[in-house]
Amino acid sequence: MFFASDNTSGIPAPVLAALTQASEGYALGYGADTLMDSVRAKIRRIFEAPEAAVYLVATGTAANSLAIATYVQPWSQIYCHRHAHIEEDECNAPEFFAGGAKLTLLEGADAKIDAEAFAQVLAAMHSGVHHPQPGLLSLTNLTERGARYTVAEIARLAGMAKAKGLAVHLDGARFTNALVAEGCTPAEMTWKAGVDVVSFGGTKNGLMGVEAVIFFDPAKAWEFELRRKRGGHLFSKHRYLSAQMDAYLTDDLWLDLAGKANAAAERLQAGLIAAGVRLVHPRGGNILFAEFPLAAHQALRAAGAVYYDWPAPPPDGAGPAHPQQCRLVTSWSTSAAQIDQFLSLLKAAL
Amino acid sequence: MFFASDNTSGIPAPVLAALTQASEGYALGYGADTLMDSVRAKIRRIFEAPEAAVYLVATGTAANSLAIATYVQPWSQIYCHRHAHIEEDECNAPEFFAGGAKLTLLEGADAKIDAEAFAQVLAAMHSGVHHPQPGLLSLTNLTERGARYTVAEIARLAGMAKAKGLAVHLDGARFTNALVAEGCTPAEMTWKAGVDVVSFGGTKNGLMGVEAVIFFDPAKAWEFELRRKRGGHLFSKHRYLSAQMDAYLTDDLWLDLAGKANAAAERLQAGLIAAGVRLVHPRGGNILFAEFPLAAHQALRAAGAVYYDWPAPPPDGAGPAHPQQCRLVTSWSTSAAQIDQFLSLLKAAL
Amino acid sequence: MFFASDNTSGIPAPVLAALTQASEGYALGYGADTLMDSVRAKIRRIFEAPEAAVYLVATGTAANSLAIATYVQPWSQIYCHRHAHIEEDECNAPEFFAGGAKLTLLEGADAKIDAEAFAQVLAAMHSGVHHPQPGLLSLTNLTERGARYTVAEIARLAGMAKAKGLAVHLDGARFTNALVAEGCTPAEMTWKAGVDVVSFGGTKNGLMGVEAVIFFDPAKAWEFELRRKRGGHLFSKHRYLSAQMDAYLTDDLWLDLAGKANAAAERLQAGLIAAGVRLVHPRGGNILFAEFPLAAHQALRAAGAVYYDWPAPPPDGAGPAHPQQCRLVTSWSTSAAQIDQFLSLLKAAL
Amino acid sequence: MFFASDNTSGIPAPVLAALTQASEGYALGYGADTLMDSVRAKIRRIFEAPEAAVYLVATGTAANSLAIATYVQPWSQIYCHRHAHIEEDECNAPEFFAGGAKLTLLEGADAKIDAEAFAQVLAAMHSGVHHPQPGLLSLTNLTERGARYTVAEIARLAGMAKAKGLAVHLDGARFTNALVAEGCTPAEMTWKAGVDVVSFGGTKNGLMGVEAVIFFDPAKAWEFELRRKRGGHLFSKHRYLSAQMDAYLTDDLWLDLAGKANAAAERLQAGLIAAGVRLVHPRGGNILFAEFPLAAHQALRAAGAVYYDWPAPPPDGAGPAHPQQCRLVTSWSTSAAQIDQFLSLLKAAL
Repeated sequence: MFFASDNTSGIPAPVLAALTQASEGYALGYGADTLMDSVRAKIRRIFEAPEAAVYLVATGTAANSLAIATYVQPWSQIYCHRHAHIEEDECNAPEFFAGGAKLTLLEGADAKIDAEAFAQVLAAMHSGVHHPQPGLLSLTNLTERGARYTVAEIARLAGMAKAKGLAVHLDGARFTNALVAEGCTPAEMTWKAGVDVVSFGGTKNGLMGVEAVIFFDPAKAWEFELRRKRGGHLFSKHRYLSAQMDAYLTDDLWLDLAGKANAAAERLQAGLIAAGVRLVHPRGGNILFAEFPLAAHQALRAAGAVYYDWPAPPPDGAGPAHPQQCRLVTSWSTSAAQIDQFLSLLKAAL
Repeated sequence: MFFASDNTSGIPAPVLAALTQASEGYALGYGADTLMDSVRAKIRRIFEAPEAAVYLVATGTAANSLAIATYVQPWSQIYCHRHAHIEEDECNAPEFFAGGAKLTLLEGADAKIDAEAFAQVLAAMHSGVHHPQPGLLSLTNLTERGARYTVAEIARLAGMAKAKGLAVHLDGARFTNALVAEGCTPAEMTWKAGVDVVSFGGTKNGLMGVEAVIFFDPAKAWEFELRRKRGGHLFSKHRYLSAQMDAYLTDDLWLDLAGKANAAAERLQAGLIAAGVRLVHPRGGNILFAEFPLAAHQALRAAGAVYYDWPAPPPDGAGPAHPQQCRLVTSWSTSAAQIDQFLSLLKAAL
Repeated sequence: MFFASDNTSGIPAPVLAALTQASEGYALGYGADTLMDSVRAKIRRIFEAPEAAVYLVATGTAANSLAIATYVQPWSQIYCHRHAHIEEDECNAPEFFAGGAKLTLLEGADAKIDAEAFAQVLAAMHSGVHHPQPGLLSLTNLTERGARYTVAEIARLAGMAKAKGLAVHLDGARFTNALVAEGCTPAEMTWKAGVDVVSFGGTKNGLMGVEAVIFFDPAKAWEFELRRKRGGHLFSKHRYLSAQMDAYLTDDLWLDLAGKANAAAERLQAGLIAAGVRLVHPRGGNILFAEFPLAAHQALRAAGAVYYDWPAPPPDGAGPAHPQQCRLVTSWSTSAAQIDQFLSLLKAAL
Repeated sequence: MFFASDNTSGIPAPVLAALTQASEGYALGYGADTLMDSVRAKIRRIFEAPEAAVYLVATGTAANSLAIATYVQPWSQIYCHRHAHIEEDECNAPEFFAGGAKLTLLEGADAKIDAEAFAQVLAAMHSGVHHPQPGLLSLTNLTERGARYTVAEIARLAGMAKAKGLAVHLDGARFTNALVAEGCTPAEMTWKAGVDVVSFGGTKNGLMGVEAVIFFDPAKAWEFELRRKRGGHLFSKHRYLSAQMDAYLTDDLWLDLAGKANAAAERLQAGLIAAGVRLVHPRGGNILFAEFPLAAHQALRAAGAVYYDWPAPPPDGAGPAHPQQCRLVTSWSTSAAQIDQFLSLLKAAL
């Protein structure tokens, strides 16, 4: 009953096998390994982007911060949702990598940027020398509240951004969960919708720690390479990143993993609804936010269920005695048995 | 009829005379001039702060950014009003000087931070490693909408900040305008109310370009000196900054100048009210925001009146045909004749 | 015959096994895994430093830059050898993480800092506000030219640094190679000699990509944690870093691996000397620099030997037709057969 | 007998008068003043550069750092002399403004970059992703040791830089002293010799604190404007910078001031030579470095002569009992009487 995060699960067997296999013999470092050639080719094919520049890093914060920094200046504004990961959970990493750029926060339910709210902000945007300058729009799909942008919604927001000269970044830490749920192609969710650069996550979907950064405009490649190196994110033994991503993209493993995680969340959701539990946000993929009565919450925790209060209770305990909301995340390894055990406990406690 | 800003006026005669006098003979540079000793002594006396560290810089952006950077880390949050100068009008200078720190925006009418809104933000503040860390609260008095914090309001907000471990900065670009209107002492508006460091403005109140930064805790002095130098804000011929500030603080010149500006604004306000013009924000000192009917606005402009539409119309002209609000700023040099001429034109146009 | 770098070899079986084992079940992320508790305890015991703060990152550039940044200010000077990795091979990463600090370069043969040269620089060091401020001394052992500092040499340089208020960092990308060759304890090479923080490398000695940063003063812990997160170097699935390092420190694996690499280099060295090849620098561990006649060089390359010209030939080909020096690096996986084949080819070509 | 620095002298009367005159009436701020139009036109004419972008800032550190930052990236190398002001006397300001770029130091007598030494560094320069990238060459004329580059020397160094893709900056804190002594045109010393951007100093040559930054390629203008604002170096009451520079460029005042300073140095030099004092560096303009016997030095100081030991004695007094070298700087206001009094004292003491 481990629903704390999709980053708490193990590594699928094909990925472990690929690591072992990659360890045979010698390989040049720093991205010059032949496995990276394979990764690049696969991503280009999957994204229908034969010119795309493709890079691997090990953390989502690195992927997001480096991708964004390549598109903005230190005097730029980066538009994102108030609850974006880059705003709330990266300890000012985007500001660090972008040399002191500013995050400008947008409103919207379920951590999705509201188009009307964005339009108002854009209308008031100025570009005189006193003001921060227009920079980039960063979207997150799935959002931090587990909701999903449709392709049309991405296209609309990206279109508004581009009309004002902003670049568009997609934080795809849970890209595949969104993709599978949306039932579209990677190209439809990204460059066909106006996205310039995507953080294509592997870690939350089963890898040890690998994220791809994909630039649809290869002119950005060299600057990204320098930024990656300067940020300490260029791996000497790069082949072990390549091997993971290569296995991930082989035989549709990436899609299978996300499909399993989403199906687990669907099963969990159905059980919660049947139990009369209120869900706080619409489910876009593998994340649920639920409200549990205090007694049920305590019983679940006592029985060993692991999940986060969300938002976290204030550090000084000044908040309500019981968190009103809990976050439950499933992963490729969440079993039906785990879910059913959790639901049984819940029903007994209600 | 020049109401564009208090930074468009000339320099009072005593300040010009002080510059000429300071130019006699030789003086060591970089703050080692004897005039600076006089400035330091005067500020310490005026602020009843015998240990205060006192520095001069030439711009308000430098004063604010350097003062704030001395109190925060690159991973900190700087809390300020959504319409603070440091947020809207400094082209990311605070983020630059603070190494990529984050500005977190607070709400409140008239560009004054609402205590309840601040309390909510503080209650939700986290300090785990993923999150931006608590840093500093920056207040502005007069605010960017011309309103004024009372001493009690400053003390309340500063107290809330300190209870959470935040330092407190006061952007006093129009400190003296606020002081004179509030009728309190400099100590009451600053360290007695919990302010740690103040940007004590001279430029908007008559000087060519001199702002003092006053640290009530002298332990911050050396770091500030290094930051000032590294920012290119340490003047070799520093005595010309000292001379201005020294003249400013002599014979109550600073208080007289602000008193004149405030009185001019009061006269203007009375005329506007008499003419039936709506004022958008309460007047805290020398700034007014007024709504003019379109025809009156056009007539005033045609007659040579200078003031800003506020907020500025969108660059692409997508906004309303007529700005709903205008900003009128008086200075020490605004004459009654200017005001009366402006009011006459207005009445004729209404 | 792969002597390009010790980062081109595979992963020892116990490390791969540890990864597979770590993948079982669920574990909290971001360093809260129980394997990290084991790593911390082992490092504290090995370094005889029960209070040390211990962290893992994935690259040497991250380890060095984050460690250094925790000890200096943006206005500081970082003293290092002219041929230090942090100067030549990190694309300004130290400057980036340290917010614009300055690297001041020191001279000395074999990439070892010469104590007399360092003394002269220290004697001329100023601390007035115009000047960069004293910050930190960074040593590298093994050096970038394969030489080794003795414990006494480290202690002497560190002592000189401390007398001037500088912190001391040890870039130990090849720490264990140096340790095994020197025959001292980890404590003797670090804190007993005056080192404050060490980048304790695992990657070049067999791991996929794991370096420990060890602070002997735990007061630096929290700042480092924030810097690591802000730099995108805190792994969500941290247990896979822990598992590698834990296996590395189990049953003396780390010492065995370095011992094998050093022994291979010794065998290679003996063969080169026997063949009459000049060695450019004294061998400190597992790195050799040799001068090959052009014909021998071409024959070796043609036969498939892989190693670097060093220094690299100028990009525009304006340098000498044949590089005068070549770098040969052995690793834990370098076999006697590889070495003997290489030496046979060399003798045939000479 | 004040020879400490040319920044210790007063302000010429025409400049003071211009300030007073500029103070009449109202003027828009932030560089929109009409005096700036005059300054721009004059500088374009003087430099025979009708397209040049021209800006004013108040300090030399700001001029240099902002100019350089506009031409480099954070991962760049900035080449300069080991004794350049940007290396030794700006507390890491160039690194700060350039986001962590690296200063790479060049050798040469009299603080002039030696072309052969520069050629060797350029030949070894690499541009792979691990290495700092080629950025900019910064020259200083007069140099920090008072020597002067000829136009041919500037052209040679700039040509070497450009052949490698480096931009070229000229730190002209004492530009006019060099110009007058060299007897060339401003164009010859700058863009005709390959200089891209020049810090055209006014402060050391009589102004209160005004330096022009001149870009011969106007494409750099907007980025500079943003950097200037973000650095807190855009003056609201900009007209007072313009007024000074405008007076400076009127009726050849700038040339007259530098001519006076140079003539004073020549008179002083002649007297020193006649007295048998050794001059350490060749005189390029208004700076002399002399070796005084200890007794003479003490007598001069006792008589009130003000000048700097150079290099400064070590802070801990570990250096020689008597500084071997002293720096003597003349300015536009140095009188023949001062010089003769100084020389008399010296002769008496020898």
